[in-house]
Amino acid sequence: MSFYNLMPNIKAPNKGFGELAQKRLDSLTKPIGSLGVLEDLVIKICSIMESENPDISKKITVIMCSDNGVTDEGVSSCPKSVTLEVTKNFFRGITGVNVFSKFAGSDIAVVDIGVDGEINEPLLYNKKIRYGTSNILKGPAMTKDEAIKAIEIGIDMINDLYKKGYRVFGTGEMGIGNTTTASAILSAYFPNDIEKLVGKGAGLTKEAYLNKIDVVKRAIEINKPNVDDPIDVLSKLGGFDIAGIVGLYLGAALNKVPILIDGFISGVAAVVATKINSRVSDYILTSHGSAEPGTKYLFEVLQKEPMLNLKMRLGEGTGAVLAFKLLDVAFEAYRNMGTFTDANIKDYVPLD
Amino acid sequence: MSFYNLMPNIKAPNKGFGELAQKRLDSLTKPIGSLGVLEDLVIKICSIMESENPDISKKITVIMCSDNGVTDEGVSSCPKSVTLEVTKNFFRGITGVNVFSKFAGSDIAVVDIGVDGEINEPLLYNKKIRYGTSNILKGPAMTKDEAIKAIEIGIDMINDLYKKGYRVFGTGEMGIGNTTTASAILSAYFPNDIEKLVGKGAGLTKEAYLNKIDVVKRAIEINKPNVDDPIDVLSKLGGFDIAGIVGLYLGAALNKVPILIDGFISGVAAVVATKINSRVSDYILTSHGSAEPGTKYLFEVLQKEPMLNLKMRLGEGTGAVLAFKLLDVAFEAYRNMGTFTDANIKDYVPLD
Repeated sequence: MSFYNLMPNIKAPNKGFGELAQKRLDSLTKPIGSLGVLEDLVIKICSIMESENPDISKKITVIMCSDNGVTDEGVSSCPKSVTLEVTKNFFRGITGVNVFSKFAGSDIAVVDIGVDGEINEPLLYNKKIRYGTSNILKGPAMTKDEAIKAIEIGIDMINDLYKKGYRVFGTGEMGIGNTTTASAILSAYFPNDIEKLVGKGAGLTKEAYLNKIDVVKRAIEINKPNVDDPIDVLSKLGGFDIAGIVGLYLGAALNKVPILIDGFISGVAAVVATKINSRVSDYILTSHGSAEPGTKYLFEVLQKEPMLNLKMRLGEGTGAVLAFKLLDVAFEAYRNMGTFTDANIKDYVPLD
Repeated sequence: MSFYNLMPNIKAPNKGFGELAQKRLDSLTKPIGSLGVLEDLVIKICSIMESENPDISKKITVIMCSDNGVTDEGVSSCPKSVTLEVTKNFFRGITGVNVFSKFAGSDIAVVDIGVDGEINEPLLYNKKIRYGTSNILKGPAMTKDEAIKAIEIGIDMINDLYKKGYRVFGTGEMGIGNTTTASAILSAYFPNDIEKLVGKGAGLTKEAYLNKIDVVKRAIEINKPNVDDPIDVLSKLGGFDIAGIVGLYLGAALNKVPILIDGFISGVAAVVATKINSRVSDYILTSHGSAEPGTKYLFEVLQKEPMLNLKMRLGEGTGAVLAFKLLDVAFEAYRNMGTFTDANIKDYVPLD
């Protein structure tokens, strides 16, 4: 059964619970709405989880790891083997997302969805589709069936982790070359802005950067993605990591749980997910705005704004994990601030 | 002795320690610089505190509370008495800054620097200058001597709290009418942009908002602040809260500790502090960007950017407290991420 059959099951969040949350927020001792985005988060999450008092304590970042054939074109300053090494390092507790997750009290799930190498770790989710995608300058990155399989892996990951009690999800990725594949997908939707939206990823010389732009342009010319068919765009230009993350978003919407964009790669996956099913957008929360220049394009499509402005460009899910703390503090305020009655204040409200 | 005599003691942070921090950051298993602003924070704080491994565990938000005579002009939707009530509520654990501080593991120090009423709380710092400033439409808000006294109170607060072991400071305030006084100060520096920089504070009807703009314009006309003399601007248009916060910044620079801007009010105080002594800027870190429209003007003057984009407008120090967590995570990464050697990676570095 293809994931397409599940799409009608994605419903809009239940605004009734959001209204209950709004009512409580408006009773708290502060000017109405003065906690801004933190209040929006509470309202959205109550609507999504259909509860006035949702349990958001168990959080996890799902890190999709895979290699990209386009690295043959010299688009990254790192050798491809770094994908394998960093994926292994997620199990050694030494990476950025490890340290951030410990700080945030959240967990990680590491998924091999297409790493070019073997990883022997008992906690690895081994969902390898292939040892990396094909080079997008030689044809499509993957078949449509592979793209669908990757999406279904993402959906299944959320289903499984939901059963284990997780209720808030972060997206993460590791894959050398994936700012190129993400840029290629975004470029399919903004073909006139390729120079502007392609960035330097982890860091590139000027020459390598110009090559990267050229590679993205040629990938579009060679593959002729059909922008009316998101699976066509995804399969021709994407990575298994991006396709897997698309599935994470769909899975979160199906399970009625919130899911956070991390950076540029997962943001592009969010664009694809919302093009598959626009209702998914209501389940997707932002975290930080990546330093990649394409970021502003994807937020424009998503009609969302990042909460954190830290110019990070590490990926791995680090931005999403930081934003977990913002969800926590929003609910702390919602649950533990006093009301106007507690506060002996009648008039601390705006007139407009 | 006036605080002016202390100003030569404000030195530039010691960049040598920042360079040591940079070296360690560049050895961690991530693309160089990829933690963005979090890396800048570590470098700045190591330079400020003159240590490669500074102890930032003890943090406190100093909340300057005072009333403003300009509330007679109907510039706020709240009655003036809310200043007194909220100041009392800081001791009852029910306000936004209480809940956020508990979340962040930081403390608060509540200073009565000019509240129109009596507060009987053993933990209150009673530094009352007067029962609120004068109405800025009838003349200067305070005398120059009062402005200097308020600044010295701020400096003394940092001196005292430093002795108690605090090493990271947040700024906070409570004072009905203080978006008007802060806007008036900023308007002195941007006289052609008054309509653009005055905002709705906690919330105002359109009519009340237009009145607020008019009040700010008239305050400038009546008081004729001398923009070449920050104490003149501050004393004529400011509040005791703003003047006290100016002192906090100067005190932090004198004690070589970092201090965080909260929102609009404390941001305007940062502008005044840097006009008194430009070196203070190096000790001032940002937190969030307030929803007040004047925020962008003050960040332009300060040449800084906010780290959090949450459209909050509560004050009390809530934004600064949230940013304490970003300082913590930055140092967690700095101290606990693995190095390239640990990570079995040689080439995860950019070429440019």
